[in-house]
Amino acid sequence: MPQTPHYKLTYFNIYGLAEPIRLIFAQADVKYEDERLDDAAWQKRKQLTPNGQLPLLEVDGKVLPQSKAISTYLAKQFGLNGQDDWEAAQIQAAIAGLDDVKTQARTYREENIPKKAELFQKLEHDVLLPYLNRLEKALAENGTGYFVGSHVTQADLHLFDYLKRFNDSGLISPALKKMPNLAKFIDTIGNLPKIKEWIEHRPKTH
Amino acid sequence: MPQTPHYKLTYFNIYGLAEPIRLIFAQADVKYEDERLDDAAWQKRKQLTPNGQLPLLEVDGKVLPQSKAISTYLAKQFGLNGQDDWEAAQIQAAIAGLDDVKTQARTYREENIPKKAELFQKLEHDVLLPYLNRLEKALAENGTGYFVGSHVTQADLHLFDYLKRFNDSGLISPALKKMPNLAKFIDTIGNLPKIKEWIEHRPKTH
Repeated sequence: MPQTPHYKLTYFNIYGLAEPIRLIFAQADVKYEDERLDDAAWQKRKQLTPNGQLPLLEVDGKVLPQSKAISTYLAKQFGLNGQDDWEAAQIQAAIAGLDDVKTQARTYREENIPKKAELFQKLEHDVLLPYLNRLEKALAENGTGYFVGSHVTQADLHLFDYLKRFNDSGLISPALKKMPNLAKFIDTIGNLPKIKEWIEHRPKTH
Repeated sequence: MPQTPHYKLTYFNIYGLAEPIRLIFAQADVKYEDERLDDAAWQKRKQLTPNGQLPLLEVDGKVLPQSKAISTYLAKQFGLNGQDDWEAAQIQAAIAGLDDVKTQARTYREENIPKKAELFQKLEHDVLLPYLNRLEKALAENGTGYFVGSHVTQADLHLFDYLKRFNDSGLISPALKKMPNLAKFIDTIGNLPKIKEWIEHRPKTH
């Protein structure tokens, strides 16, 4: 049996783009170095990175940038990227769809507090609720409890990471009451033993 | 030998997100239906699509959304996605890096013409030149004439599509004079017989 490579994941001490990757390591039960840089350390390191961005993955010293490339590479190694090329494609599409929603959500950012509530209502109506409804429908149609195929994949971990934190914040919990498949999905993934253990013990950041 | 599936690519009558996919079909020399919708046809079709977006790929009637998922699925089928998982990861990272630059470029959009020139200078200095320098260095380090591994991949086709049109517009041609690897790359890919033929005969849009 080949030896497990030495994996090092470098990011800031936040959830952000790295948390779905940390969930992949957790679900696969694979050890890795979870390096978290503060701003001072990052300013020193930045010039040495391939593209001036984090996260970065090192595999036995070889470096890979870009969160989605890292996530897909690891998911593939750990059996979390679907059963065939078509499932892998659906997984990539599901993660890209989530990214589109995150990008749209960023355009609604607003410092002024009263306007923030108004903007969130617009975001909820125009973007989030239609998206959650699409997810609810996708789960109902697939019928396995997972988004793609009949096993847990990295698509589930990306979506869980987003939906759970959003749900915990209270912002989508009323909407989820009308979406039984989605509510059950969050519960199922959150109770996978290794995911549950990671969430209980992970550094509590934002 | 299994029969080639019926492929249909649906997009608008522009280059945009679909052109790298069309270049993949061209390089692989695989037939497909190149459906191009005008606005009226799209408004009728939109409700029937999985996510209200284009492009969409149909493979024997099964539908896949999201341009990068489509591109990677096809590249995999046609031997244009690298020789192993690590090359596939580097390819995904290269395409994601290009997407980051396109996203940053969009934040510099400006209708007012004098300000447009000023904004382009800033974009060129802060984003484009550092990016082109990274690409030049990546080609020099890889040493094969391609961005990943020793064969043409979808990463080359995505980067070629962007760099060639940018170069043809005159906007980066002065910079390219100091980047021999990048200039040669554009020339090499543009002269692959099937790519050259497609570019000569493709619908001339924007």
